[in-house]
Amino acid sequence: MEHSPLSLAQSLLRCPSVTPAEGGALAFSESVLREAGFEVHRPVFSEPGTPDVENLYARYGKGEPYLLFSGHTDVVPPGDTGRWRHDPFGGVIDGTELYGRGAVDMKGGIACMMAAALEFVRERPDFPGSIGFLITGDEEGPAINGTVKLLDWAKARGERFDACILGEPTNPERLGDMIKIGRRGSLTGHVTVEGKQGHVAYPHLADNPIPNLMRLLSALIAKPLDHGTDHFDASNLEVTTVDVGNPAANVIPAAARATFNIRFNDRWTPESLEEEIARRLSEAAGNHVRYTLTMEPTNAVAFLTEPNDFVGFIAKAIETETGIRPKLSTTGGTSDARFIVRDCPVVEFGLVGQTMHQVDERVAVADLDRLASIYRKVLDAYFPA
Amino acid sequence: MEHSPLSLAQSLLRCPSVTPAEGGALAFSESVLREAGFEVHRPVFSEPGTPDVENLYARYGKGEPYLLFSGHTDVVPPGDTGRWRHDPFGGVIDGTELYGRGAVDMKGGIACMMAAALEFVRERPDFPGSIGFLITGDEEGPAINGTVKLLDWAKARGERFDACILGEPTNPERLGDMIKIGRRGSLTGHVTVEGKQGHVAYPHLADNPIPNLMRLLSALIAKPLDHGTDHFDASNLEVTTVDVGNPAANVIPAAARATFNIRFNDRWTPESLEEEIARRLSEAAGNHVRYTLTMEPTNAVAFLTEPNDFVGFIAKAIETETGIRPKLSTTGGTSDARFIVRDCPVVEFGLVGQTMHQVDERVAVADLDRLASIYRKVLDAYFPA
Ligand SMILES: [Zn+2]
Ligand SMILES: [Zn+2]
Repeated sequence: MEHSPLSLAQSLLRCPSVTPAEGGALAFSESVLREAGFEVHRPVFSEPGTPDVENLYARYGKGEPYLLFSGHTDVVPPGDTGRWRHDPFGGVIDGTELYGRGAVDMKGGIACMMAAALEFVRERPDFPGSIGFLITGDEEGPAINGTVKLLDWAKARGERFDACILGEPTNPERLGDMIKIGRRGSLTGHVTVEGKQGHVAYPHLADNPIPNLMRLLSALIAKPLDHGTDHFDASNLEVTTVDVGNPAANVIPAAARATFNIRFNDRWTPESLEEEIARRLSEAAGNHVRYTLTMEPTNAVAFLTEPNDFVGFIAKAIETETGIRPKLSTTGGTSDARFIVRDCPVVEFGLVGQTMHQVDERVAVADLDRLASIYRKVLDAYFPA
Repeated sequence: MEHSPLSLAQSLLRCPSVTPAEGGALAFSESVLREAGFEVHRPVFSEPGTPDVENLYARYGKGEPYLLFSGHTDVVPPGDTGRWRHDPFGGVIDGTELYGRGAVDMKGGIACMMAAALEFVRERPDFPGSIGFLITGDEEGPAINGTVKLLDWAKARGERFDACILGEPTNPERLGDMIKIGRRGSLTGHVTVEGKQGHVAYPHLADNPIPNLMRLLSALIAKPLDHGTDHFDASNLEVTTVDVGNPAANVIPAAARATFNIRFNDRWTPESLEEEIARRLSEAAGNHVRYTLTMEPTNAVAFLTEPNDFVGFIAKAIETETGIRPKLSTTGGTSDARFIVRDCPVVEFGLVGQTMHQVDERVAVADLDRLASIYRKVLDAYFPA
């Protein structure tokens, strides 16, 4: 049975798989992949305090190289469904567009991957390598029972990957605009300055922590962390909140707190960055200011997949299909690619992200066909006949 | 019947007159003053949203000059009474000290005023002037149904005062240390900086209000408002709170707010100060920063009773009784003196403030006798025989 990218996408969109619900999306994927000859597993992962989450791992072939498609079938909630032009879980086509929560992020991408892979294994059932799917149901939620555990689970089974395409919507405006070959890391820290509470009429008996906190924060943002690297923009620090919570205008408060978040490039590790932050604070604080710095643990390190053959295959397939030479980018937020990159090179390419997480999320039907065609060309290049 | 400062203080301390409760303190004062020949009134003031509060106004004599004693019989709550060495409403003498909530702030001071006045009118019943008491039960609370309304009420009756002694505890360490001849004013303002919310990964699409708020606040505290005046310390601005309340470390917040309080001297009026604040903010904001400044209405203007004969009588009486030359001060918080000064010169002198508002508030019994004696000497000097 043949499956078009559109029909696969419609079937997936009709599954109400808001994290952590499976909603039938993985069951449907399993049946389609199994029918095409994939060996399919459906591990469920648990963690105290979080809901159990279903996941899917599928493999076709036993040889090498092993190319992995990765993604998620869970979606963010549709919000006020009354504001949608069409049922967010209806898989409705309106003119040239397919509507639904997940249309671009990223059931549409999964549908294109599956369509390409199904076609490829039907036409070349005995190709020498392997094609796999690593699909989680916990990307939009806590992301605890998802990709990380699924990778560990696969590794424990002896699975080894050679390259991975993650199908997140990477294109800002048109299909073909942008491949993500890396992501900045993310690091969050908290600074608390201790002062001494007192009455505003007697400031010499108190020690106002607010000017001191301002001095420390100024030191954090005064100088850029770097000026960018070969493939990355400059790292950036934002103070995201400052809170004292003192309701009494005649009282000098005892303490003042701030939180900052840094999006950092491959010039830094979380460790080297924390050192730099600590150094800046310590220098600004001198001997007078009593403060504490707490960094939140992070698994969002910066990573880069150096432009190589694999990236080249994808860029070439995109240009052939769309006529656009894609930008090799490292911008934007973090993604599950940061976990996969520990095991193999990973590149992100998917649909156009403009409507993701919004009301009336939708995808051009033509984009589905073209993205499937791009993925198919990548398979052809990766597994030459 | 004779009343010693100690017995009057004990009787007052035994009245549980936590604001807004009268607790018997004004009734007791009324009976004592009436017995001595004072005409006594007990106006009750109301305001929607606040409890009714009882007050007392008493006058002896019809002539001029008219010297007014002023104060309050309400007290702050005792807090955890289990932490007190003695019942906070027991009027207990332990060794050389009298314990109780209000011992120094300011039932003790009222007791000394009454003792001095009763003795004076008993010895010189036909002196040519007038002695009055203006005592509120709403100083420690909202202060809405207290001194301000009592002064209006008295004015409406045609009462005119020539000088006033407010009996708040003015001495930091020893009886005689300090007369307050003025008070700084107090002005509170709020600054809000508007930015544009966004994701930390896309700072160019957002506008973080926090660095801008820090810039504005720095401009407020960068330069002193003044360097003090003849009788006043320098004005002082404290930022008392900064609040953003953004719980999401991956979000750049939309707005940031701060509150500041200024204790200002007679170099400023609230109006001139607001102008200066607005000027500093506007200069720091330039054209980029969108902010709003809101000043809270204030009735706490700075005032000064220029050292004159009246101040001189009090200083002399103190020095004669204690051997200490009192400091003429304008330090500390605001007091009801800021209202009385609209009608006549006012000077504050009372007991030692160290234990006010604390557990085990207490007064040296000897201080009660000496303060009563000082007040008596002031009456003798003010109404020479
Ligand atoms: Zn996604
Ligand atoms: Zn008081």
